[in-house]
Formats: sequence, structure tokens, C-alpha cells
Amino acid sequence: MDERAVKAAVLVIGDEVLSGRTQDVNIRQIAEFLSPLGITLGEARVVSDVQADIVEALNALRARWDYVFTTGGIGPTHDDITADAVAAAFGRPIDVREDALAILREWYAKSGTELTPARLRMARIPEGASLITNPVTGAPGFQIGNVFVLAGVPKIARGMLEDIVHRLEGGAVTFAIAVRIEGAREGDLAEALGQIAQDFPACSIGSYPWFEELPDGGFKRGVELVARGADESLLGAVKVRLQSLAS
Amino acid sequence: MDERAVKAAVLVIGDEVLSGRTQDVNIRQIAEFLSPLGITLGEARVVSDVQADIVEALNALRARWDYVFTTGGIGPTHDDITADAVAAAFGRPIDVREDALAILREWYAKSGTELTPARLRMARIPEGASLITNPVTGAPGFQIGNVFVLAGVPKIARGMLEDIVHRLEGGAVTFAIAVRIEGAREGDLAEALGQIAQDFPACSIGSYPWFEELPDGGFKRGVELVARGADESLLGAVKVRLQSLAS
Repeated sequence: MDERAVKAAVLVIGDEVLSGRTQDVNIRQIAEFLSPLGITLGEARVVSDVQADIVEALNALRARWDYVFTTGGIGPTHDDITADAVAAAFGRPIDVREDALAILREWYAKSGTELTPARLRMARIPEGASLITNPVTGAPGFQIGNVFVLAGVPKIARGMLEDIVHRLEGGAVTFAIAVRIEGAREGDLAEALGQIAQDFPACSIGSYPWFEELPDGGFKRGVELVARGADESLLGAVKVRLQSLAS
Repeated sequence: MDERAVKAAVLVIGDEVLSGRTQDVNIRQIAEFLSPLGITLGEARVVSDVQADIVEALNALRARWDYVFTTGGIGPTHDDITADAVAAAFGRPIDVREDALAILREWYAKSGTELTPARLRMARIPEGASLITNPVTGAPGFQIGNVFVLAGVPKIARGMLEDIVHRLEGGAVTFAIAVRIEGAREGDLAEALGQIAQDFPACSIGSYPWFEELPDGGFKRGVELVARGADESLLGAVKVRLQSLAS
């Protein structure tokens, strides 16, 4: 019950997210994957495909958080610079590595795919890193220190997370309960809600207004109240108090 | 044609995004709104509802980028701490301000809503900030220096962006073209693509693999190639070269 909080960060690497062209879903996917392991996200960043920016963000995040998960930039094309940036952040040499190459050879042999020089780039792994299995397209991710380097394609990132679950040491699992109050407005609940938050300092309580457009042009509104904490029975008591706000 | 690049950052404030409970859509929405104005996103961060974290991130971002847009944490509940955090980041006092209060009074009078002490919190504005109109729910956002403080609800954030469009000074507008090659694999295109990127150094060219699951359990794959730049005629030439990769 008195376990240490374990916190992680996500570093999304990619111009395509910053341009608005691609909707990132990896922050959410990684948060949902980590939560039952007793690991919560403390921060996320999105940076562009520029080595200096990746290095700076990665070094800041890995110093502060227990784990860092990067997504994107580990493919075979000219704009895939994550592996080199991670090596630079750690001050490690990087080159094509035999273990990664063997995986690519075996994978491509099965599908009759040619191991082009471009594909060889995907066997470039920083010295001292351990590989992460990619069950979707073969080319591995890697772990170096507390940093896990994953693919950007959500399906591949998800497959890689499955491979590293046993390398992660979680803390106290955080549970959440939610109470949805239709028709409520935050301003009407705020005082009573603030009192509940004060009465349960061990829980973190958030209030999120929502608006839903109706077919007739009008809209429905309400508030979603969410409480989080490590103690499920305490959360049960909080839930009762939150539900009382609906009346 | 030789205008300076204008770059912005987004700071998403909210435990609900880091917990994975809420899918952020404001990064993408703001990127898409800024792009035609000649402003591109250089970075985005998501931080939790902790004042020290907000202050640190905001001060880093506003020093580095031309503009910063924050979303979230400006409602009436106890977990809405953005206005105070922004005031702290700028070292400015903050209190209920008459101009903001007048807006709330008028708005709530129309709808017969009571101006509770909790709602008064939404009139707390840092000294020297200028207000941003909220056409959806009344409570204003604000601008201080190069920082624009917006609501987290996407519909409200969008309405606030419309109000500040004339306060933003853009640079060269970046255009984008995209070529979608069904059935292609990045590794097969990578060398030719790298050559095209070298031939057009004024454009930034990205390659994004995609996978689509089919009803029969199989999947379709392909690559989306995207080129960006300020010169539309150059992008036309790039597009022809990218299309040639499909054959």
C-alpha cells in the first residue's frame, strides 16, 4: 500500500503529428497499457524530426521520469532518425548489429522481401541496447537504459509493448472511478466538489465538462467527475459522495 | 518568399490526457488552425495539473517559440489551476478582474445562471493580460505576452482561436502535397525517396507507412508520402517525382 509511485513519459517523434496531419493515439495507448502495471504518465512531448530536438527532449525526460517511451522514426526512410538521435543522447556508438540483422534476414526470407540497403538501416542499434520484438513487421525496437524505442504505427507500438511488459517494474496500481452527471454545470458543483477533494486528500479528483451536439441543433451538457487513487475502498466512498452531487 | 518561419508550441494541461482517459484533439486542431496563417507547431507538451510542472514547461516553451497555446484548466473547479500557474510563470499578480467579471455577469444574466463564488474563479486573470472571447460558455481565456490561454473543451478552444486570429503574425505559409501508394513498403521506396529528398532540399519530405485490417482478417498496407514547403510550384515538381515511385 505504501509503494513508490512509478512514473513514465512518452516522447512522440514526428513532424506528421505536429503538422496536424496525423492524430497521435500512442500517448493514450501507452497510458492505458501502463496503468494496470502501476505506472502512470507524468508527461508527454511531441517533437519534430530534428536530431537536436529529440536529444534535448529525451535527455530531459529520462533524467526526470522512471521510464521513457519514444514512438516514431525507426523505419527505413531518410526521415527516420530516432535510433541515431537516441544513440547521440546516450553518447553511444551506433551501427548495424548482427542480432538485429539476423531478425530482419529471417523475417524477410519468409516473405521473399529483399534486404535492401535502406532496410539495413533498421538494424542500426545503439551499443548496449537490448532489442524489442516487433510481431507485426519484424524490424525491432530497442531498450537502452530506462528508454524504450517503439515504432510510430500504433499497431506495431502495441505489439512492442507486449514484448516489454516483463521489463517494467510498476508501483502501486492507480484505480479510477467516474461519475457522469447529465445536465450539470461545473460552476454549480464546484464548491461541493472542492469540499470532497479536501475530504479525500489521498485521491485526485478531476472535473471534466462535456458538450454534445444534438440533431436538432441544440446541445446536451454535463460533467464527468473522475477520482483516482491507490485505495479502492476509499474510492468507493468518494464515488458515493460524487453521486450525491447529481441530486 | 523569404519570410521568417514562425513557430508555435502547444501546452496541454491535464491529468485526464496523461491518464489515457481523454484523447487529446487540441494539438491537431491548433496545428490545423495555424497552418494557413503561416505558423507551424515546433513542439507540444502534455503536463499534469501540478503548478510547478505547468510553470516549468510554460517558461521553457515561451522562451523558445514565437507563440504558445495552452489548453485546459481554466474552469471553476478546484483542479483548474492554469490561470494561477500562468501568472506565476510570468511573475504577475492575479485576481478577479472587472472586465472579466462584467463578461460573466452579462453572460449568466442572460441564461439565469447564478454567479457562484466558484464561477468567480473564472474571472481571475493575471495583471496585464488581455481577454479572449469564449463564444460557447462565456468565461474568457486570456493572452499574456506570447502565451494564449485557451479552454480544454475542443469546441470552446476552437471558438477562442477564432477570436485571436488577428493577434497572430504569421510567416511564410507552408503547403503540403501527399501521394498515397497502395501496396508499397517503405523499404522498397526508401532509396529513391532519399534521392528525391536530396534533390529538393527546400522541401521536407516524410514517409508514413499504414496498415488497414480487412474484414477477412488480412490487411492492406501502403505508404503515404508527404512533402511540405513554402513554394507551391516546387511541391508540384516533387509530387510528380513521388508519383513515379508508384510504378
